[in-house]
Amino acid sequence: MAAQPLDFYFDFASPYGYFAAMAIDELAARHGRTVAWHPILLGAVFKSTGVAATVQRPLQGDYLRHDVVRCARYYDLPLTWPEVMPINAVTPSRAYYWAAARDVDLARSLAKALYRAHWQEGRDISGIDAVADVAAGIGMDGDAVRSGVQDPAVKDALRAATDAAMARGVFGSPFIFVEGEGFWGADRLVQVERWLAQGGW
Amino acid sequence: MAAQPLDFYFDFASPYGYFAAMAIDELAARHGRTVAWHPILLGAVFKSTGVAATVQRPLQGDYLRHDVVRCARYYDLPLTWPEVMPINAVTPSRAYYWAAARDVDLARSLAKALYRAHWQEGRDISGIDAVADVAAGIGMDGDAVRSGVQDPAVKDALRAATDAAMARGVFGSPFIFVEGEGFWGADRLVQVERWLAQGGW
Repeated sequence: MAAQPLDFYFDFASPYGYFAAMAIDELAARHGRTVAWHPILLGAVFKSTGVAATVQRPLQGDYLRHDVVRCARYYDLPLTWPEVMPINAVTPSRAYYWAAARDVDLARSLAKALYRAHWQEGRDISGIDAVADVAAGIGMDGDAVRSGVQDPAVKDALRAATDAAMARGVFGSPFIFVEGEGFWGADRLVQVERWLAQGGW
Repeated sequence: MAAQPLDFYFDFASPYGYFAAMAIDELAARHGRTVAWHPILLGAVFKSTGVAATVQRPLQGDYLRHDVVRCARYYDLPLTWPEVMPINAVTPSRAYYWAAARDVDLARSLAKALYRAHWQEGRDISGIDAVADVAAGIGMDGDAVRSGVQDPAVKDALRAATDAAMARGVFGSPFIFVEGEGFWGADRLVQVERWLAQGGW
């Protein structure tokens, strides 16, 4: 039986999610594994748990803004601070689930393109115009995406993914599961890699 | 002019502070540097910023309890979950500053012994009996420590260290400064090491 995919939960608004998104597929592939991508809305998690978003916490928000820029250089990834941050990621997340219902590889490409637009180019990707434009940039039909994000099934898929994440204990982004083992943060990718290599420790 | 010491801020109640404490002196020494240890009271920081302690946040608290045990195995460090956690670290922190005013190397040994008692043996080190016992275990005069922690200058030193940490943006433990560059978390020690090796990036 093939090993099950890693589960990768992230919010498009999360810079550490961006770092993980740029590395996770290759990391998994090195160990013969694939990745199931699950954009979620951390805002719903924060609201449910009564915890403030990291970037809005005193002191920690300032640290995050500095750490993200430093980490981008550390990981050798391009970074432009977005004009709006944190964004509301409802629309890009719905676009992902609309695409995933049709072609999961295309959906993953869309997710990476959205992350690059937001964190490498600094674009506000919260609106449907930006999302459709990014989708068109990877060869998708922008108008189909525009109507797709209005599909009630797509709205349900995003809600279900966020609920499922919370039920598994997800409270931040990125959050990666290797079978039942959850790892929070881009800085845990080194542990994820060792876990895959050794089957735990 | 000799490079200034790294500043290492930590709370004795913090398991990630324990991980860093077991590694930071050797890490710094590899780059010809020393470390100034500063126990602080994160509770005062949380109170000031209105943020809940990590272990008390929904979902994140459960994750922390799992992650700490997994990280201890990852770092190959002994761990016994403390009978009381999080402890109030006022008394062990004061004992540190009392010792540091006399012999900073002895104070550092005391800090490590306190961390080992708490996180390797699972002892509650919040009370003066436990602190005096740990101090006696490394050859200190337990009775002198008992009276030392009552010294108003020692109480002031702990308050001043916590205030100074907050003024520098410290909101968690461990927090390490290389000159003006702050790094939060035991998982940032790899970045601290690269920063020391390269003088930044």
